[in-house]
Amino acid sequence: MAVERRNPIKVNEAIERVMTYKREGSISYVPIEQSYGNFLGEDLIADHPIPPFDRSPYDGFAIQSGDTIDASRGNPLVFEVIGEIGAGSVFTNTVGKMQAVRIMTGAQIPDDCDAVVMLEVVKELEDGGKSYFELKRSIENGDNISFTGEDTEAGTVLAAKGTHINPGVVALLATFGYKNVPVSVKPKIGIIATGSELLALDEPLQPGKIRNSNAYMTYSQILRAGGEPIYFGQFNDDLDTCFEQVQAAFEEVDLLITTGGVSVGDFDYLPAIYERLNANVLFNKIGMRPGSVTTVAEKDGKLLFGLSGNPSACYVGFELFTRPIIRTYLHSDAPFLKKEIAFLGADFPKANPFDRFVRGHLTYKEGKMIATPVGLDKSNVVTSLADANVLIVLPGGTRGYEQGMEVAIILLEDQEGATFNHFTWNDINSRRSHRHV
Amino acid sequence: MAVERRNPIKVNEAIERVMTYKREGSISYVPIEQSYGNFLGEDLIADHPIPPFDRSPYDGFAIQSGDTIDASRGNPLVFEVIGEIGAGSVFTNTVGKMQAVRIMTGAQIPDDCDAVVMLEVVKELEDGGKSYFELKRSIENGDNISFTGEDTEAGTVLAAKGTHINPGVVALLATFGYKNVPVSVKPKIGIIATGSELLALDEPLQPGKIRNSNAYMTYSQILRAGGEPIYFGQFNDDLDTCFEQVQAAFEEVDLLITTGGVSVGDFDYLPAIYERLNANVLFNKIGMRPGSVTTVAEKDGKLLFGLSGNPSACYVGFELFTRPIIRTYLHSDAPFLKKEIAFLGADFPKANPFDRFVRGHLTYKEGKMIATPVGLDKSNVVTSLADANVLIVLPGGTRGYEQGMEVAIILLEDQEGATFNHFTWNDINSRRSHRHV
Repeated sequence: MAVERRNPIKVNEAIERVMTYKREGSISYVPIEQSYGNFLGEDLIADHPIPPFDRSPYDGFAIQSGDTIDASRGNPLVFEVIGEIGAGSVFTNTVGKMQAVRIMTGAQIPDDCDAVVMLEVVKELEDGGKSYFELKRSIENGDNISFTGEDTEAGTVLAAKGTHINPGVVALLATFGYKNVPVSVKPKIGIIATGSELLALDEPLQPGKIRNSNAYMTYSQILRAGGEPIYFGQFNDDLDTCFEQVQAAFEEVDLLITTGGVSVGDFDYLPAIYERLNANVLFNKIGMRPGSVTTVAEKDGKLLFGLSGNPSACYVGFELFTRPIIRTYLHSDAPFLKKEIAFLGADFPKANPFDRFVRGHLTYKEGKMIATPVGLDKSNVVTSLADANVLIVLPGGTRGYEQGMEVAIILLEDQEGATFNHFTWNDINSRRSHRHV
Repeated sequence: MAVERRNPIKVNEAIERVMTYKREGSISYVPIEQSYGNFLGEDLIADHPIPPFDRSPYDGFAIQSGDTIDASRGNPLVFEVIGEIGAGSVFTNTVGKMQAVRIMTGAQIPDDCDAVVMLEVVKELEDGGKSYFELKRSIENGDNISFTGEDTEAGTVLAAKGTHINPGVVALLATFGYKNVPVSVKPKIGIIATGSELLALDEPLQPGKIRNSNAYMTYSQILRAGGEPIYFGQFNDDLDTCFEQVQAAFEEVDLLITTGGVSVGDFDYLPAIYERLNANVLFNKIGMRPGSVTTVAEKDGKLLFGLSGNPSACYVGFELFTRPIIRTYLHSDAPFLKKEIAFLGADFPKANPFDRFVRGHLTYKEGKMIATPVGLDKSNVVTSLADANVLIVLPGGTRGYEQGMEVAIILLEDQEGATFNHFTWNDINSRRSHRHV
């Protein structure tokens, strides 16, 4: 019953050890309608310029600008309208001197013309069944023309592989003719829940027991991160059976997550299972709260994430260690959640020797980011997770934190991502002491 | 060929007119695994307290604190360990004076005990097959106990109906036994694309024509907003056929979006179609850029959104006018995208008489929000949409805007939402003049 000795490592070091085993997945094609929320499997490159031809951004008249030099309020000039071009049509006749073509928004500029006069600035006339307009100002060469390639040159990378496909990316995919879109294949991620205190969701409450929330929470975190979750159910209480369950699940997935069972308690089977699997334990103790018992092991290059059994430690462990592995699999070069600076929205008086990741709610006030801890911040508190949209990073030390101090935050709903060296915890530590004493 | 007169109304007024026709949808049940990304159909209420019983947050020994009063460094007391309780078990024997029960994290406190001693602060002993520990400090009544209801009392509303279901909400749903989750039924939203310049995605480029990006962009915006998109394809060029297509599609959906065809050009059929449908046109001109021709009509309480044919006007029109209708249908009381203040990241020198909604990219710098216009900000530019995560609101006026000025932004990826009166454009106008002259 003695406490097993474990050597805690730093969070940064833990992330680095995990990322040693990162690998990228394959790509597949889905119809563009199904692409939203997926991740680009390849760079999206413009295969033609945008606009693809010189076109009119307004309704108006295409003309030769040289004809307008003498036009003025005192000297209105009259142009003959010899035809019209709808968007999608091409005008093939010759446009002569003092002639014009009625042009619709988006239509291609006729070869003979070099400017467009907006509909609003002319006076339209009819005479003998012919159309004319009167112009009282001169027009410059190029006025009111969107030129070929003005938006984007052919060959431009418009979105890198691994990019989360949002509605704007879908617009680009459509523009460049991707009826089917190359998307990153999602990693299959197994979940096994452990803990003899866990009830299934449809079981009535019993003394001493709680319902299994971690498995479903993690399931949703996997979906948010871009993985394909597979829930293998709850562990059996017998070690031999457990071992077989883990071994079988591990074969079927790209990585396996267990929740609970990684402490040093008598019912914590995971350490024994890693040993029997001959898995290489990368670490089993991290100098952070919550989630200090988070364990990651590796076998044949495939990762096993032993997340803590308490909800917020489980949540934090997933976002810090599992998410970047998933996003790398999806081909992202910025697989980490974005870290930024915010102002603490409330005192956090209790000093703590360990680096803490406190669930927080981000709000904005006159352009500033305010991050406020939510709930009681006990690691077994589940209710505050619903409001959490950031993790507040509070480096360990001998003092607490005061409202208004600068703190690092990790944006939980962010899709842009960051590279790992965006900044380090040490930077934050020094910021903190420089900025506010 | 004369320009039809239209009376522009203010953006606020347009939103209000649309919201007159808001209505809420029904609810259905999905398995909890499928609930992520949906919207709560009912308030989520705690039907039992959390924790549901007094429990230990740590591994340790449950004791009667009164026995420890005299313990000190100079006077270590020895306790007999008479049993153990794993998480999920209940200890039913009596715990007597100077006795203790080994207790695991999460396990229920025995009836006779009122405190927990952490494993780390005792020295464990064995003698004659019995277990003991030595304690050198006194323990207070209630130490290291998570009390019933300390996190949440029974009856607390933990998340309101209409809330976007994130991993934290899923954890709550699991905790309260929702094997099946009541979610808001998504509104069916039809899309019809118009424009004779539009090519299907798999057609090769042709002179004067462009590929149809709006339909797919809008399709994804509907998904992001929480609707169920149905694409009815591109319009036929014949007005009678168009009318029949619109009428048939309108029957099948909760609301219908058309893209393009709302201007006053010769090929803009929508005005004629609204008339034939006997639809009530709420407005057909808004004092804003882009999207001034955005038209919304209503027939028998059902809405037709006539979005502009140019991509960024289409995008903005959807987010300002269609999204809040969708989120209201999903039972949200905060159906609008959140509006905040940010600092302009670049000069925007061109003065404009109209309120502008400029696509921007939000970044953060030392706790401040910086919103920078992306792309060329011409309304026909599609490439900048991929990077846009905010709309920058630039009220019309006689001056341009400078880097560093305060501007209002609308957060495009936000899931929390806002009520309409969060602030008004006028507030921003006055802010602007007060803050920066």
